[in-house]
Amino acid sequence: MPESLAMTKRTLGVCYYPEHWPEAWWADDARRMAALGLTFVRIGEFAWSRLEPRRGTFEFDWLERAIDTLHAAGLRVVLGTPTATPPKWLVDEMPDMLPVSAEGRVRGFGSRRHYDFSHAGYRRECARIVEALARRFGAHEGVAAWQTDNEYACHDTTLSYSQAALNGFRDWLGARYQSPDALNRAWGNVFWSMEYASFNEIELPNAALTEPAPAHVMDFRRYASEQIVRFNRLQADIIRRHAPGRDVIHNFMGRTLGFDHFDLGRDLDVSSWDSYPLGFLDQWADRPAEFKRRFLRAGDPDIQAFHHDLYRATSGGRWWIMEQQPGPVNWAPHNPAPREGMVRLWTHEAFAHGAEVVSYFRWRQAPFAQEQNHAGLLRPDSEPAPGFAEAETVAREIAALDLPEATQAPVAIVFDYPSAWAWETQPQGRSFTYFRLVHELYRSLRRLGLSVDFVEAANPDLSGYRLVLVPGLFSWNERLRAAVASAEGEVVVGPRSGSRDPNFAIPTSLPPGLPGPLAALKVARVESLPPGASVPVAGESGAFGTWREFLVGTGDFDVRLRTEDGEPALVGSGTLSYLAAWPDADLAVSILRGAAERAGLPVLDLPPGLRVRHSGGLVHCFNYDEAPVHLPDHGLSGEPVLGTHDLPPSGVAILREG
Amino acid sequence: MPESLAMTKRTLGVCYYPEHWPEAWWADDARRMAALGLTFVRIGEFAWSRLEPRRGTFEFDWLERAIDTLHAAGLRVVLGTPTATPPKWLVDEMPDMLPVSAEGRVRGFGSRRHYDFSHAGYRRECARIVEALARRFGAHEGVAAWQTDNEYACHDTTLSYSQAALNGFRDWLGARYQSPDALNRAWGNVFWSMEYASFNEIELPNAALTEPAPAHVMDFRRYASEQIVRFNRLQADIIRRHAPGRDVIHNFMGRTLGFDHFDLGRDLDVSSWDSYPLGFLDQWADRPAEFKRRFLRAGDPDIQAFHHDLYRATSGGRWWIMEQQPGPVNWAPHNPAPREGMVRLWTHEAFAHGAEVVSYFRWRQAPFAQEQNHAGLLRPDSEPAPGFAEAETVAREIAALDLPEATQAPVAIVFDYPSAWAWETQPQGRSFTYFRLVHELYRSLRRLGLSVDFVEAANPDLSGYRLVLVPGLFSWNERLRAAVASAEGEVVVGPRSGSRDPNFAIPTSLPPGLPGPLAALKVARVESLPPGASVPVAGESGAFGTWREFLVGTGDFDVRLRTEDGEPALVGSGTLSYLAAWPDADLAVSILRGAAERAGLPVLDLPPGLRVRHSGGLVHCFNYDEAPVHLPDHGLSGEPVLGTHDLPPSGVAILREG
Amino acid sequence: MPESLAMTKRTLGVCYYPEHWPEAWWADDARRMAALGLTFVRIGEFAWSRLEPRRGTFEFDWLERAIDTLHAAGLRVVLGTPTATPPKWLVDEMPDMLPVSAEGRVRGFGSRRHYDFSHAGYRRECARIVEALARRFGAHEGVAAWQTDNEYACHDTTLSYSQAALNGFRDWLGARYQSPDALNRAWGNVFWSMEYASFNEIELPNAALTEPAPAHVMDFRRYASEQIVRFNRLQADIIRRHAPGRDVIHNFMGRTLGFDHFDLGRDLDVSSWDSYPLGFLDQWADRPAEFKRRFLRAGDPDIQAFHHDLYRATSGGRWWIMEQQPGPVNWAPHNPAPREGMVRLWTHEAFAHGAEVVSYFRWRQAPFAQEQNHAGLLRPDSEPAPGFAEAETVAREIAALDLPEATQAPVAIVFDYPSAWAWETQPQGRSFTYFRLVHELYRSLRRLGLSVDFVEAANPDLSGYRLVLVPGLFSWNERLRAAVASAEGEVVVGPRSGSRDPNFAIPTSLPPGLPGPLAALKVARVESLPPGASVPVAGESGAFGTWREFLVGTGDFDVRLRTEDGEPALVGSGTLSYLAAWPDADLAVSILRGAAERAGLPVLDLPPGLRVRHSGGLVHCFNYDEAPVHLPDHGLSGEPVLGTHDLPPSGVAILREG
Repeated sequence: MPESLAMTKRTLGVCYYPEHWPEAWWADDARRMAALGLTFVRIGEFAWSRLEPRRGTFEFDWLERAIDTLHAAGLRVVLGTPTATPPKWLVDEMPDMLPVSAEGRVRGFGSRRHYDFSHAGYRRECARIVEALARRFGAHEGVAAWQTDNEYACHDTTLSYSQAALNGFRDWLGARYQSPDALNRAWGNVFWSMEYASFNEIELPNAALTEPAPAHVMDFRRYASEQIVRFNRLQADIIRRHAPGRDVIHNFMGRTLGFDHFDLGRDLDVSSWDSYPLGFLDQWADRPAEFKRRFLRAGDPDIQAFHHDLYRATSGGRWWIMEQQPGPVNWAPHNPAPREGMVRLWTHEAFAHGAEVVSYFRWRQAPFAQEQNHAGLLRPDSEPAPGFAEAETVAREIAALDLPEATQAPVAIVFDYPSAWAWETQPQGRSFTYFRLVHELYRSLRRLGLSVDFVEAANPDLSGYRLVLVPGLFSWNERLRAAVASAEGEVVVGPRSGSRDPNFAIPTSLPPGLPGPLAALKVARVESLPPGASVPVAGESGAFGTWREFLVGTGDFDVRLRTEDGEPALVGSGTLSYLAAWPDADLAVSILRGAAERAGLPVLDLPPGLRVRHSGGLVHCFNYDEAPVHLPDHGLSGEPVLGTHDLPPSGVAILREG
Repeated sequence: MPESLAMTKRTLGVCYYPEHWPEAWWADDARRMAALGLTFVRIGEFAWSRLEPRRGTFEFDWLERAIDTLHAAGLRVVLGTPTATPPKWLVDEMPDMLPVSAEGRVRGFGSRRHYDFSHAGYRRECARIVEALARRFGAHEGVAAWQTDNEYACHDTTLSYSQAALNGFRDWLGARYQSPDALNRAWGNVFWSMEYASFNEIELPNAALTEPAPAHVMDFRRYASEQIVRFNRLQADIIRRHAPGRDVIHNFMGRTLGFDHFDLGRDLDVSSWDSYPLGFLDQWADRPAEFKRRFLRAGDPDIQAFHHDLYRATSGGRWWIMEQQPGPVNWAPHNPAPREGMVRLWTHEAFAHGAEVVSYFRWRQAPFAQEQNHAGLLRPDSEPAPGFAEAETVAREIAALDLPEATQAPVAIVFDYPSAWAWETQPQGRSFTYFRLVHELYRSLRRLGLSVDFVEAANPDLSGYRLVLVPGLFSWNERLRAAVASAEGEVVVGPRSGSRDPNFAIPTSLPPGLPGPLAALKVARVESLPPGASVPVAGESGAFGTWREFLVGTGDFDVRLRTEDGEPALVGSGTLSYLAAWPDADLAVSILRGAAERAGLPVLDLPPGLRVRHSGGLVHCFNYDEAPVHLPDHGLSGEPVLGTHDLPPSGVAILREG
Repeated sequence: MPESLAMTKRTLGVCYYPEHWPEAWWADDARRMAALGLTFVRIGEFAWSRLEPRRGTFEFDWLERAIDTLHAAGLRVVLGTPTATPPKWLVDEMPDMLPVSAEGRVRGFGSRRHYDFSHAGYRRECARIVEALARRFGAHEGVAAWQTDNEYACHDTTLSYSQAALNGFRDWLGARYQSPDALNRAWGNVFWSMEYASFNEIELPNAALTEPAPAHVMDFRRYASEQIVRFNRLQADIIRRHAPGRDVIHNFMGRTLGFDHFDLGRDLDVSSWDSYPLGFLDQWADRPAEFKRRFLRAGDPDIQAFHHDLYRATSGGRWWIMEQQPGPVNWAPHNPAPREGMVRLWTHEAFAHGAEVVSYFRWRQAPFAQEQNHAGLLRPDSEPAPGFAEAETVAREIAALDLPEATQAPVAIVFDYPSAWAWETQPQGRSFTYFRLVHELYRSLRRLGLSVDFVEAANPDLSGYRLVLVPGLFSWNERLRAAVASAEGEVVVGPRSGSRDPNFAIPTSLPPGLPGPLAALKVARVESLPPGASVPVAGESGAFGTWREFLVGTGDFDVRLRTEDGEPALVGSGTLSYLAAWPDADLAVSILRGAAERAGLPVLDLPPGLRVRHSGGLVHCFNYDEAPVHLPDHGLSGEPVLGTHDLPPSGVAILREG
């Protein structure tokens, strides 16, 4: 980590598009940014048509003047590579660089992200423009960090069904399986005479008349994820060659599970993400209408933190918010204005979870083009928008605080992007998604006041955790199985974990394949349930729904919960438990409270709008609700370093622990 | 206006397809039409394959015999050009005349409207057949009027994404912008490197990977509207050359906002439209289920009148119903039978709003092909269907009445087709449509018993109106702004009015851009709300929903309504008000009642099923409900010239005003 | 019927895929099947890539070893032709054999059923492989029966819009109509200038811009059905040549109305079908949520029996279940586990309706490929799954019983596949489907405890039936009209019956076209109603919905029911009645109870979860509910030969009648 960025002091930033405004405005904009208390300014990521208006005609001078202007005002630039927006002349030179939808339609020019990660020609073009930019600006002292492209996967661009993708996939399969027979065996192609005699016979999985083999889809998902990682690495490597000591960042979107962010994050110094709480709440379908109305102007209290914790893990701890919602946005089905104070709250919550930088999107609302209804810190007439004052407040508050670095949480969730692909490929029940399963457990942990880390399934260091969850894991790897076997804390595995081998087949010894005394446990069969159908649990007010497994096998373990129809539902031996179904919110809290108590972890019982985060001896408290709340004396009685024990709507308090 | 048609006497008509029936039946059909009391018969508009079965082989004799037969019975023919149904031989000669859907599929032969307005070859073919028909029948004394084509835009045919459309659009852009740079600036193409170096680089807006620039879409909408206007003008000009003194009519559909009917109407003598009350109620989604059940057999009491008033405006006052629903139809998701008396009611309501002619669709139910479940005045076995007797009743009633011409209403709504395109392009909230906004305000005016005219935004003569509404206006034109500034009556502008400049950018001075003391008012930001979320208003029982603006600015004006969270919602100075949000039904009535009272307009408080129309010293009253209603003594106590003060279900009364 | 299969003893079977398992396992599998009490084993139907891995290289030895192994264990093989799964090398040789969706997308390789029934080349290939298999195994004494292909129409494969289909359709139309003019008249093409000058001008009905002519669609449906019949006959003829005395079977899916199963069944000895009660309940949309929850683990109590009775008719009485759900499946939106006892119940119910064989799908759950979550009798680890024990119980029970052959039921429903196509083509009301209409009447008959046969509309032998229903009949044929006229029992015709002539036109004499005194009855007009709208009936608690006709005409008949608005709803003369609307469940039961009473048929009043089937002097009773039920003393008091008068959940009893 370059020393210059190893900070405990949190800072603010903003996204800025000098090419959108008269050059005469730049200096004043820079002055006002600095005066507001901002430190970082991201620029350049959509500017290819201005940086290279015609092939080979580089026009970098304006960018240098912009960087110089910002730098002169004391700001530090994050320079984006413009590869999310290839210009028209380039697309017209090689139209087969365009991605193709699952329905077979070319996804063309006219907006952004119109390129196929599999296209070798486009990768060469990207290397060319990144090389040119990195040569010119790599050593510029105003450029503190680089961002590769922007929001991989946004607008459903992970998967493309182009000729380039088909060629690439065939080569990838050839390298992976070496012989068509090996592939036929791995995919189970004998099933419906789907056997291939040559890798060149294989089609993309959008071609089949009905459902393709799940292993076929899974390999295409792996292939597609690897293309993005390779695409990013190409840029990161060039930047590192020319910009020593600068952080390389990519800016992730929320809830994009199409590619493996851990895998990609290994090529980054910093993971950043886009936090749009109101847009996410309205756009994502899996919360009830009443909940959506309650948090209409605040966002889901457990979505931002979830991503903060996840992206803190994807690059080894260092993370930013690159785009923070500063007011109403334009892209969700409905776009309400945030309640007063929420922009401040969201910013503080990111810092509580360890963000180094929170950067608002964007400086000035653009009155033209696609995002003209997206608020900025400034209105289109350059007057401050409401978010401006909230950013100013935060800037003042963090300057007065001395927040410690994020510390390890007591609870870990093992997270695995391939599991998301697997259950999207084979949900078995329409409402089964990996994201929803993991997020509902995360929400229950938060209701108990517990702070959470995410741990990558492929690199599972569980040391120090007193409670570990392994939900919905597609397939064991040996390191993870060993880590579970030797974990110091309580470990709750399941549901559906370990239910497939890497070839997407049911292990012949049957799932879940646990270590130790639970090794005798087998999932004899599974069922999925429609909304409204549930399986009551003996002695509990909550119930199971969506998914259930029927366990068989005997051994040295206890049945800790049983359904009312007599099936074992939670089975354990010592610190290891297996959960054989998907619990509703009440049941999940009950199960996790039990596990936390066994682990000796103190828990709270928080209302849906109050959330806390423990880190470095402090407890950060956030009131997402529109009613004031008094912090419970039990557990949240420490001395305030910010705010008081009475939180107004959108209120924030930071207490000393104890 | 040709003197022969300048009538105050209203008349009836019918649509007839001689080519569908044995020639031996024609004379008897004509006799029965005349005996029923019909005056006009529209024929010919789908008969191309019979008029020209092979290229250049015109077979017009049968049509002449049909016209002669009708004429001999005392009927007056409206002759349709057959260009809505190009025959197969023509399509096979130039298959690229077929339109293309937004998904890229060719929309082929086998029904109707299978042509692309942009296709020069097809336009030439239309000119050829229209010229031939007009030469032959232009001076025929039995032909009183001509109809161009039929129902432009029906079956979603306004927009086509063909090569012809692409070529035409590029040329149109070239003419509009002169240079790619000018277009790039107008569209804000710098935003995502969407800049073009040549007009030939521009694609249609269905090609982009995600949302295209709104100005790009808006220009395509303008282009598409102009193609229809040009297509129609080509036919109208030919007809006028050969058929002097005959009215040129086009027959519009309901709720087709895809092209500018004012613009097209300038080339017509008469606007006609298709009134299918039950089909519209079932097909259009934006009314609650309870409302739809209540008016299942009557139709929405405010939909027919809305279109009557709108189409009265599109050709300067003269309008017809060319197709009036006479019984159950076939094309809505569900097709109930009208309640007894509703066919009579609908017909009288059209006359109350100034229709010259109400023409039923169709004479005899066709037992074959696509519309075999569409009722006619006759059943397929030539016996009278229930609508027959109701038409007979109306014929007798109007013969005994002497209805004056429609007079100017006291209230005007400024209507603007481009605004419909704009908010379809950029709804910002999923449920925001221009039609719904305008129609809900119209319904509230009707609940207050007010009669309404529509005024074209591009030609805004507001003189004589005591109350004017300007809702949801995309962009000001200087004549309209001046008309608002100098209006004699009360003017209520908004919500969302004036929020864009013609290039679809937010004005840098910020909306709404009002004249006079309200010039200081600015919309600082906007929000859209999901169904179920609302913003209460201080002192009112109603609330805002769907859309809200946050106003700033100070000046010589009052805040007339404020939301409970303290934001100004209705702001005014003298006779000019600005409404900053979308009111629900109760709030809209309250706001409009206040404006009407300030304007000195007497108002009523009508139940949902009772509607009135004032015109020429008479008040026409219509009971859409299935329960009888006694007309309120206050305001509806004048002497009846038809019916009584007690209206049975589907009842009609005409009172003298006063 | 080959003597060897003329049984009154029912037997069990299973589906087995030797190619999925090591050859070393086959003998033990066969031994366990026989020990379980199974008799039949279906194999081979997806094995083309193993039977002919390259063109012309037949590898049949493994299949012979598998057959020999099964035969040696005392099992009888049903050998499937592998034509549902053409291998990749064949598809690559002639890619135009692939079907095309209505949206124009090629439906490719990678799953199954990827072929076009119209493709002559593929038909030749099928004849080639079937001939080779039949030559080799036709006389094998272990092969007791043959199955052609599998599940025609599954995955929406009846209709294909390929070039092969277009060519075939044009030829078929040429043969049917002889001249384009005859076709133009039959289709009513004059309507919108849709006239053709040559058969080669005709397009498939997916090409039209909006709704095509219904006669156009109907002819394409007829054509498509005939292609499947022809495809099947080609295989059946080859098999019969080489496998004398063996039954030829096809295995139908549930609720596949796309082709005429009666027509196809004439080429079969036995109709078999796939009974998946839980999958069907979850997948099919037309039952209320409460009903779906109640029968979540049991299935719709009237769906299995409906198909049993229907497929008993399609091949003249002989029928099997080829695939019986043995546990949770994988393909419905949600896949719950059956309640304990339901696999036994389903099996007994099939026997009660006359099944010769009930064959479970499948022997061992496949841990790989598309159906890995589909239960078998064995788990993937070869241990018994819960269905195994239930099959064992049934095997023991049927060995102890001596069930008589199915006898004629007292009630018949006239069933007609073309009617399903007709109302799919022209529903007139969105919720009108032929299946739902017929099935709701069937359910009402079952609620009355009546047993039902289906009779083919085209071959209507109504002798011996005391009550006959003719619902929703598209078009009369003279034999059916005569059979109705001379029927001995009560006949209830309608709604919508006889409403079109074979050219899909309304008969000029108007529907329903009944014989005898009801000939004067005419449907003057029809209406369709949205969900929630209903038409109350005088003196009845039930009501009409979805569909209603307005009857006119006078004659020697009574109005037996009248709507509250005064319209005749059930009109009759002697034993013939006409029902002019779609009754809800209560009204249907009331109407059918009246008809049964007139016919002298004793009826019951069964709760929704209790169902009975009378056959050969026995009454079979089935409790689909999760609560126990005591059989009503009235009507179900006979002596038990299986079970008792108290049925536990999932309980079965067989009583002697009396």
